[in-house]
Amino acid sequence: MHFELLHQDKDTKARVGKLHTDHGEIETPIFMPVGTAGTVKGIHQYEIENEIQAQIILGNTYHLFLRPGTEVIEAAGGLHKFINYNRPILTDSGGYQVYSLSGSRKITEEGVKFQSHIDGTYHFFTPERAIDIQKSIGADIIMAFDECTPYPCDYQYAKNSMKMTHRWLDRCFAQFNKTPGKYGYEQALFPIVQGSVYKDLRQESAKYIADTDSLGNAIGGLSVGEPAEELYEMTEVVTDILPSEKPRYLMGVGTPINLLECIALGIDMFDCVMPTRNARHGLLFTSEGTINIKNKKWEKDFSPIDPNGTSSVDSFYTKAYLRHLIKTKEYLGVQIASIHNLAFYLALIKEARVKIMEGTFLEWKDEMVKKLGQRL
Amino acid sequence: MHFELLHQDKDTKARVGKLHTDHGEIETPIFMPVGTAGTVKGIHQYEIENEIQAQIILGNTYHLFLRPGTEVIEAAGGLHKFINYNRPILTDSGGYQVYSLSGSRKITEEGVKFQSHIDGTYHFFTPERAIDIQKSIGADIIMAFDECTPYPCDYQYAKNSMKMTHRWLDRCFAQFNKTPGKYGYEQALFPIVQGSVYKDLRQESAKYIADTDSLGNAIGGLSVGEPAEELYEMTEVVTDILPSEKPRYLMGVGTPINLLECIALGIDMFDCVMPTRNARHGLLFTSEGTINIKNKKWEKDFSPIDPNGTSSVDSFYTKAYLRHLIKTKEYLGVQIASIHNLAFYLALIKEARVKIMEGTFLEWKDEMVKKLGQRL
Repeated sequence: MHFELLHQDKDTKARVGKLHTDHGEIETPIFMPVGTAGTVKGIHQYEIENEIQAQIILGNTYHLFLRPGTEVIEAAGGLHKFINYNRPILTDSGGYQVYSLSGSRKITEEGVKFQSHIDGTYHFFTPERAIDIQKSIGADIIMAFDECTPYPCDYQYAKNSMKMTHRWLDRCFAQFNKTPGKYGYEQALFPIVQGSVYKDLRQESAKYIADTDSLGNAIGGLSVGEPAEELYEMTEVVTDILPSEKPRYLMGVGTPINLLECIALGIDMFDCVMPTRNARHGLLFTSEGTINIKNKKWEKDFSPIDPNGTSSVDSFYTKAYLRHLIKTKEYLGVQIASIHNLAFYLALIKEARVKIMEGTFLEWKDEMVKKLGQRL
Repeated sequence: MHFELLHQDKDTKARVGKLHTDHGEIETPIFMPVGTAGTVKGIHQYEIENEIQAQIILGNTYHLFLRPGTEVIEAAGGLHKFINYNRPILTDSGGYQVYSLSGSRKITEEGVKFQSHIDGTYHFFTPERAIDIQKSIGADIIMAFDECTPYPCDYQYAKNSMKMTHRWLDRCFAQFNKTPGKYGYEQALFPIVQGSVYKDLRQESAKYIADTDSLGNAIGGLSVGEPAEELYEMTEVVTDILPSEKPRYLMGVGTPINLLECIALGIDMFDCVMPTRNARHGLLFTSEGTINIKNKKWEKDFSPIDPNGTSSVDSFYTKAYLRHLIKTKEYLGVQIASIHNLAFYLALIKEARVKIMEGTFLEWKDEMVKKLGQRL
């Protein structure tokens, strides 16, 4: 796996690159649809490729570990084969889900004990275990096992947590380096910067992570409830330190505006459940602003869902029909809205890439941010 | 609208025909996927056409009347335009749903008062109203407003109910003939034979319906819990009387075996929620028998869902993956299983058509019935 930095914007820290993996190339900046349990909710694999034009998707280790379990995934020959998706896959470490989903969990230096949200059974994740599980899943990009601190988080907790995350990172690398990629293709480990919203901690963590000289680096612990200003400030602090010749992945971010602002700060990779989760509630993102399709105003609007949309659903179905489907809680409503939102995210980020290459990114971004913030 | 009877089987009452409508031709025998609220659950319109290869779908008047309502559908220019489906559509009269879904309902000679299952509001359907609503929806084939008797049903109730259904039918035709098709294409009204499981009532009703000289005729009040033998016996009694030069539609039937047996008894059209409803519970129909995909035995079965299947999902996804999706209640599981089951129904009935034309239907049917009854 290697990253090519193809272009650096003159006005901002935005960059254009290409990440080469054994499952194909990823043009950055990129957005990665979330496929929690081995499926991007409501979307067929051929739609991920043809309608959304995703280049990489994400799987959640916590969910896949519980169901179907690594035994089944290994028997299938890895997640790509299990779900029949042949492009790159990234898995999170399971940590974030363990903290946010599980009712009862206990964090110690050794690892995290937690209860399954499905059957209440107890499980124990350690940095070593998280690496082993992700190797079994067969992700192209494996994430370090970290603690994602909540917001707000007091300084001392954030500091101690960050230091433990660094010690866990060393254990992750030790475990990771013991064995080659499990299925014959390369699997890379990305470390994660933590430090909550404290500048000095973020700097310390970014240096620690940069020193690992990894194939790519991630920023975690943001988009957990902090104001957008803090998200941007911390991102900038960290991208000033992380090496420019490696891809930078900002975890769990965010709105279309967040994406554009963070691209300007030097981020290359994003993931977020927002496009699919909001779709399920009838909230659509478009280049002219957001739409709450449940609103009465769309009841007899027989215009296409999004005349500027890139997916076939945008022109095939109308706003009035989608409104009806979402209001009646029909599967097809979720399917259409999810394809639309993800296709929009991917098209937006693709356009950003073109603008960076053309040298008009900053102007375009400021223009887009105004439009994206509108409610239609 | 007219029906061409193309071939009559020598061994059974099975027939091959073609129903010409202003929205295209329907090759009979045919199965009609149920699209209750203007969507075949979990399936895109392009999949209805390309994956399932349906030739006509069904809409439910009760559901469409409540949501989005005829005002919206009329504003769209009819249901075809509202949902962007340009092949024929049939609507039921709303009667069956009113009886089976509504908690509180009251049947009188005038019509049926019922409560919405959504918001508890009261509504009143009469034969005239059911016709008007279906004309507004814009179905190519409109069904008469009848009373669908439950099973079991005592003789006197069944007889009185049948007589009222006949009186309601006269009112349906009177209302229907007052106005032309609402959207410029032909809309036809099909009357419905009732009479529960009583041979003399079924004969009386079939004669009454045959005398209306309609473009097509339906058989209702079956597949409501009676044994298969009674279903077949009543079907045969009725098809002996209904004119052979008109299509015969057996409402709400049934399993793949029911379809083949009733084709042998002279039925041309079927609809049923079974393929989609069972799909949502992980029950698959295949040419080798039925599969409960939730069973442990499929956990590591990485073979295609159905090697004999005609839709792309059958070969693209594996049994183990589909099992995982159904068990984790993922949308994609419902989507895949629904496409599979409907594509199987359509392929089965298409094969029946070929066998009837070839003169080998009876032998093939008896062979298939054995296989279809197996559990894999």
